[in-house]
This record gives sequence, C-alpha cells and structure tokens, in this order.
Amino acid sequence: MGLIVQKYGGTSVASLEKIKSVARNIVSHRDKGDSIVAVVSAMAGETDRLVKLAKEIMDPPDERELDVITSSGEQVSSGLLAISLKCMGHEAVSFQGHQIRILTDNVYSKAKIRTIDDRNIKKALSENKVVIVAGFQGVDEEGNVTTLGRGGSDLTAVALAAVLHADSCELYKDDVDGIYTTDPSICPNARKLEKVSYEEMLEMASLGSKVLQARAVEFAMKFNVKIHVKPTYNPADKGTWVVQEEESMDSMENIVISGVAYDRNQAKITVVQVPDRPGIAARLFTPLAEKGIIVDMIVQNVSKEGHTDMTFTVPKEDYKNSLRIVQEIAKELNAREVDSDNRITKISLVGVGMKTHSGVASQMFQTLAGEGVNIMMISTSEIKISCVIEDKYTELAVRALHDAFKLGDRNG
Amino acid sequence: MGLIVQKYGGTSVASLEKIKSVARNIVSHRDKGDSIVAVVSAMAGETDRLVKLAKEIMDPPDERELDVITSSGEQVSSGLLAISLKCMGHEAVSFQGHQIRILTDNVYSKAKIRTIDDRNIKKALSENKVVIVAGFQGVDEEGNVTTLGRGGSDLTAVALAAVLHADSCELYKDDVDGIYTTDPSICPNARKLEKVSYEEMLEMASLGSKVLQARAVEFAMKFNVKIHVKPTYNPADKGTWVVQEEESMDSMENIVISGVAYDRNQAKITVVQVPDRPGIAARLFTPLAEKGIIVDMIVQNVSKEGHTDMTFTVPKEDYKNSLRIVQEIAKELNAREVDSDNRITKISLVGVGMKTHSGVASQMFQTLAGEGVNIMMISTSEIKISCVIEDKYTELAVRALHDAFKLGDRNG
Repeated sequence: MGLIVQKYGGTSVASLEKIKSVARNIVSHRDKGDSIVAVVSAMAGETDRLVKLAKEIMDPPDERELDVITSSGEQVSSGLLAISLKCMGHEAVSFQGHQIRILTDNVYSKAKIRTIDDRNIKKALSENKVVIVAGFQGVDEEGNVTTLGRGGSDLTAVALAAVLHADSCELYKDDVDGIYTTDPSICPNARKLEKVSYEEMLEMASLGSKVLQARAVEFAMKFNVKIHVKPTYNPADKGTWVVQEEESMDSMENIVISGVAYDRNQAKITVVQVPDRPGIAARLFTPLAEKGIIVDMIVQNVSKEGHTDMTFTVPKEDYKNSLRIVQEIAKELNAREVDSDNRITKISLVGVGMKTHSGVASQMFQTLAGEGVNIMMISTSEIKISCVIEDKYTELAVRALHDAFKLGDRNG
Repeated sequence: MGLIVQKYGGTSVASLEKIKSVARNIVSHRDKGDSIVAVVSAMAGETDRLVKLAKEIMDPPDERELDVITSSGEQVSSGLLAISLKCMGHEAVSFQGHQIRILTDNVYSKAKIRTIDDRNIKKALSENKVVIVAGFQGVDEEGNVTTLGRGGSDLTAVALAAVLHADSCELYKDDVDGIYTTDPSICPNARKLEKVSYEEMLEMASLGSKVLQARAVEFAMKFNVKIHVKPTYNPADKGTWVVQEEESMDSMENIVISGVAYDRNQAKITVVQVPDRPGIAARLFTPLAEKGIIVDMIVQNVSKEGHTDMTFTVPKEDYKNSLRIVQEIAKELNAREVDSDNRITKISLVGVGMKTHSGVASQMFQTLAGEGVNIMMISTSEIKISCVIEDKYTELAVRALHDAFKLGDRNG
C-alpha cells in the first residue's frame, strides 16, 4: 500500500487496446491498495505526425507554436486513459500541464521543470481517483505551453514522484523489459541488469540508450526517486531498478563495466584554424547555449602558429541550426572553414567500478584498433569513456567491446 | 482600419494548403491596416476522429475527458496557422482557452461562456501581432477544459468580438458564400440574402441551418456584434450581413418570409398515457435539463380519463441518453409506454414580416397537405412556424414551401 507514479510511453498507449491494457494494469495495483498517478505519452507516431505537419509549413517551425501543437498528443492519450478507467468503474481524472501548473522555464521544446502545484493531484487522490497526467508538457510563467523534449514524459513522472514523495516511480516500456549491458538487437547475449546506479544509468541515457531520458535520471538522482523500469507487456517482470550507488552495489561489486552504450544521435562540427585568442570558446558556444542546444563533447587541439581547431558534437536534431549559427560566427572569427559530419556514433563504456580500476581505457582503444575502427574524438569521466567513431562501425564496435569486457549473459 | 475578429471553420483549415490560404487572407487585411484576431476550428474531420476514438472505449464517453480530447483539435490548427503567418514574415501568437481564460460554466461539451480575460490579446495586438485563438474551448472556474458544443468556434469569435469591441466579426465558411432562403442543395433557385436580422438568423440556426451556430447568433444579438458571413474561397464576395432588424429591413421591407429551414438533427420521444398530475412535466424535463439536453418542441395533448401523452424533441446526439433517462422516469410515473422516432425532420418558415401578416400558417399547412405530407407536431413563435414531419418528405416539403412563398431567385 503506497503511492506509485507510473509512466506509460507512446508504444504502451499506441492503440485503444493497449490503452485498455494499461488501465487494467492500473486497476490491478489499486486492487492491492496502492494509489496511482499515471503519466502518459502521446500515442506512438502522433508526435512525429504533428511535428511533420508543422515542418511542412516552416522548417524549423516557430518554437512556441510547435509546443502548442505537439503537446496536444498527450492531451488526447491522457483523456482516453481516463475514459478507459471510468469505463471499468474506477474514478479517474486527467490533468494537463496548465491544470497542475507544471511550471517550466520558457525554453520551448526543451523546457526545464521548476515547480509543480500538487494541490489538484492530492485532492483527486484523497477522493480515491486515479490521477492521469499528460506527460511532456508544462507552462511557463506567462502561461505559454512548453514541452520538455523527447522522452520528457519520463521527466514528468520522476518530477511528480519527487513532489508527491511517491514510494516508487514505475517507468513502463513497451520495447524493453529492463536495462541491459548493451543493445540486445546488436548483441544477442546482452544481459539484463537487476539494479543499476543513477550515475551509470545517467551515462547510458546521455549516451543514447533510449530506455530512459537522461534528465529524468538526473532528476531522480537529485531527489532520490526510486525508478523501476518494467515492461508494459509483462507487468509481473522484475525489470531493472535504478537506485543509489550503495543500494546497487551489492549485486555488482565485482563488476568494473556495467554496459556498452552508443549514441547515433550526435553530429560533429569542427571550426578549422580559428585564431587562438581568449574568449573564442565563449564566443562560439554562448549562442548555441542561448538556443538551448546541448553541446556534448568538445575537443580543442594544441595551438599551431596562433591557430587552433575546435571540434564538438551536438544532437542531430540541432545539427542544421547549429551549423548555421557556427558558420556565421566562424566568419566573424576569421576561421578558415567549418567542417561537419553527421554520420558518426559515440560509443561508450560505463561502470562505477571504473573509478577503482585502471586499464579500462587502454583496453577499449586496443579492442577498437583490433577491429580496424578509427577513433575521431575521445572523452572520459569518472565512470565513463566515450569515443566518436564512424557510424558504419557501430555494431561491430559494440559487439567487440561487449565481448572484450565479458559483459554477456553467463549462459550466452 | 479597425479591429476585425475572423473565424475560420474546419473545412477552411482542412489542409496545410488551406491554412496557408487563410494566412494570406489575414495578411491582405493587415495590409489594409486592420488588426486581426482569428478564431480557428479543428481541421475538418479531426473532431469526429477524436470523438470516435473516445466512443470506441466508452459510449457515451465521460464528458469531462471527452472535452479534454476534442479540444486538442483546435490547439493543433491554431498553432499551425500561427506558424504559417510567421513563415510569411508576420508576427503571430496562438492562444488556447486557458491562456486567455475563456471562463465557462462546467457543463461539459455544451459549456456557456461567462467572461474572457482580454489582457493577453490586447497586449499581443499592441505589439502588432496577429492573434490566433483556438475556438470551441474554454476552462471552468476550477481550470477544467470545457467545450462549447458543435459550431462553438462561431461563439468564440462572436464573444471575442463583443469583448474587444471589434468593428465586425467575419465568419468564413468553406461550404457556403452566405445565407440563403433555403438549402440550395435542395432548391436550386434558393436566393442569397444580402442582410438578415439576428432574429431570423437565430430561428434559421436553431432550426438546423448549419451556417451559423444558434448560440453565436444569440450572443451577437445581445451584444450587437455585426456578423459578416463570407466564403473562404472568395474573400471578396459580398456574403451576408447578420445585423439588427432595423438595419436589415431596408432590403426586405416587402418580404414576409425570408427563408425555409429544416432540421434533421432532432428525435421525437412520446411518453404515452402518463397520469395527468401537477408536477409531471417538471419531473420529466428536470433530469434532461440537468444533463444539459436541450428539449426543443413540447406538445401535450388534452387529458383523457386522467391521462395525457407528452411528446417532445431532443437533439439526435442526445437521443440515446434522453431515451434512457425518460424510460426510467416513465416507469416511476406509471406511464403506459415510451414511443420514440429519430427519423423525423423539423421544417420551418422564418421571417420577421410574419409578425404583421396573417395566413402564413394556414398556407403552410395547405402546402404540406397538398403534397400528402402528414404533420406530426406544430410549434410557432412570433417570426417562425415549425412542423415536424417524416424525414423522407424533407426535400419535397422544402421545395414546395420555397415555391409557395415565392422565395426563389427572380432569375430562377
């Protein structure tokens, strides 16, 4: 008996049949005495359809209006789920971002949650209602509709779990049954993890593992929200818990690396031969930051004859925009040219054990070299090593690293 | 140079091409120096699609959630129109019901507008922006999403025109170029009216002429909003003005009847042999009123042996619901049975001239009798006579009355 925040992604609510099956899962939890707040994404394909409509008029579309348009998808699915529950004899009520004032900043399409007014939710829960919340959306201080970015419904769920002090936050997935050592579609012997730490999950998420949105994991870590990743198609499955490092350690004390992640959603931009003066980096990255574009890896080589090359990666969806901005600045800065490449992959090893083990990086580079894969950029953190490689080597590299670090299923 | 509120219906925004053409029409008005507030419906077919989704789960669907779902259609079209204008270099901003607090009562799917907060609109207009408003939707005092009923975008437009003291309210239609003496698809010689009074339009609208929503006309009459019905496909067309009686009279001083209207959207329910006691009518109609079901015609025959029959009509969409309610009450009241028929049409003559002319009713009854059409119910008002007839006689009756009262085009 407790309060559980659940989140159902787009594929979990892709059809009326699936929505009804989500309703049945909610009811089974209520029958055990739990109170449920369910966050829903738009029906699979709907957000893409809406973005496409907008882009056919203007590409990139006006950001404020795009958020108005795309947020309608969650509005529909939240209403349909509430109706399904009512039809099964359970009181339910849907809330949109403006109805529980999910207050965000005003960076359209990538807004950050500031506060949530939990009064309407608590009132509905006290009336024994199932609360359905439209994920992905919020409002800024002026009441403009904002959205939280792709995968934003995960964030909505985690933020609600934090605000409501929920006992856990169940993130239901329709395409996976938990977190794996790597992508099982590339490595058939990938192994499901029982527990994983926030830090590791964060690295995996930020590296393109599509299971959880990175910001949602960050948020969960900050407010210590226990995330339980479970498959929609089999709610009885153990799934994977994403929890604090201490809690997760017991099951993996001897494990140095817990996973191989890859991110195909990055593009690489190089400003070639830019004069090496103080303030160049700021001049280059401030306009990108102002547009809410997240620059991931940054590499600057040693200065030669007063010039340097600056290479960095941006999300693919921001590639066109970023390139336009960078080309203008490069001209002002008298750089020789701007090179770019969006056929790259960032491949990474993740593991909290890495902190206390040496030799991981060199083994990674050797493994890649052994397969003839050229490394274009490298970046490291306490629990992660990432290399940018040519896109076409992705599967080969993932399998080679997964084997080299013995991550496979013991039975595999 | 003035402030014009425009409304574009679902067929006017049915495709991206049509939305762009709406944007061009708005720009042509701005080029003349007008400020524009444009109200949009959902893209044609979208509301039906959404209602169907909800009904597939539960029929009738939960009313609160249905409004959440259907209001998403206008959200999308308002955003798309704003993007189109921006793409053409004009500043534009969309507002949803909750953003300009179109405050309504809490009768879902048939909410009535109480107030509108015009501050955000006035601010945007002062910044020289085109204001796009999502029609059909509002919020109640608790912030629940409500909708105004079919054709509700007309009402949104007229209410905005009243609040903003707009110079006129242009209602663009994609299927007609103005108000006709009757349905041109039934009477090829139907004539377009240059002007029509609120009262006449109101009768026509409430009688199923789908050109304008009855409540919108009522609202316009109350606040003296000048309505200009125009075709989207030819904005230069003179259309039809809907104005105060005095203004409209000049063009039709000698005309007794201005139109023949018909309404196929009614169904008839008869409570047979109900004990004739005081309070029976209240007992019967109060539960219907509480559900927001609009009972139109009511006929009670002379009491025989302490029993009477009570016949009335309700909108077809409320037929099932009403029948269920009435059957329960009939049982409590010891009525013999409940008869019902949804294959009926209400056919009406409308004209302010009727007030000062006699013999219109008898000529109507004679005309129908001459065609062998049986009259099932009759109701009259100062400027209208309505008869309920069998649905299958609709076209025959419309043409016969249109001819009998010489309403046709002089060239026809």
